[in-house]
Amino acid sequence: MRRKDFSQVECSIARAVDEIGDPWSLLLIRHAFIGARRFADFELGLDIPPTTLSSRLDSLVKKDLLRRRKYEQHPPRYEYELTERALDLLPVIVSLAAWGSRYKAPNGPPLELVDARTGDPIEPVLVDRRTGKAITAGEVGLRVGPGASKTLRRAFASTGRETLVLGAAAASQGEGCA
Amino acid sequence: MRRKDFSQVECSIARAVDEIGDPWSLLLIRHAFIGARRFADFELGLDIPPTTLSSRLDSLVKKDLLRRRKYEQHPPRYEYELTERALDLLPVIVSLAAWGSRYKAPNGPPLELVDARTGDPIEPVLVDRRTGKAITAGEVGLRVGPGASKTLRRAFASTGRETLVLGAAAASQGEGCA
Repeated sequence: MRRKDFSQVECSIARAVDEIGDPWSLLLIRHAFIGARRFADFELGLDIPPTTLSSRLDSLVKKDLLRRRKYEQHPPRYEYELTERALDLLPVIVSLAAWGSRYKAPNGPPLELVDARTGDPIEPVLVDRRTGKAITAGEVGLRVGPGASKTLRRAFASTGRETLVLGAAAASQGEGCA
Repeated sequence: MRRKDFSQVECSIARAVDEIGDPWSLLLIRHAFIGARRFADFELGLDIPPTTLSSRLDSLVKKDLLRRRKYEQHPPRYEYELTERALDLLPVIVSLAAWGSRYKAPNGPPLELVDARTGDPIEPVLVDRRTGKAITAGEVGLRVGPGASKTLRRAFASTGRETLVLGAAAASQGEGCA
């Protein structure tokens, strides 16, 4: 593993990125979301070398993002399913899909998001659960939370603000995170 | 660039991951979201080698995720701001933050998401813009879209289903994407 270990950075985004932020992990999780269970399912459409796939699947199991289950005894064969914490990545996956469809599909999206029951197209939008208000750049912020270290609290206090606005037009300070 | 190029994969998620799915890009975009503008802002808290930072910022500019602006003539100095398409990554960033806070912050999140105006804590949830219904695993699916190739259409048709459910409990097919 040559890349930096972000898991200790005091930032929930960095920690999340550390866990799933390499391309193969995200793509394998996406494959599992669309129904991949067995080794051959994960190979489909990804053009991934078997040894790479094998070690990536192992690593996702170690991270408790996939659960491994033996479905054949002789010879032993395994299938993989998403854990609860992986299923909670759905908003990340769907948001990535919506962004990709918007900006990376000049001929229209290859596949569209639909309501699984009605088949109606859906347009994902992130809102606050309590107020129903859309969460948009400039209107959402970060405040020191219960898990902040003294260092982070000091760094935050030095900005002179209680809230760091996300995507604000005219800030100029890079400290803090989510 | 040693990793595979996913940009041609017929999948909006893969294309999005190709564009922002390396850890440094995601973290630098996050830094820009919380107000980083200048080189020193981006260095803060990331412990990134200057040459790496410099090339990553260049690459984000090339990808039209950051815009570069000269703020000093002699010597020439630049600052960076998020483009419109980068600001549209907010749902990805906020969803990653929420997931990280939930699963990677055993002592509580270092920082919390709040409404930038009222300061009230917010809990992000992804809903369908038209119906307001929460988008959850097993209830959202994928259907062939206008940008699908013949190959993808055939692969999809071979599943015998019109919709691939995302995060369904008992699927067993890895073809298709978003």
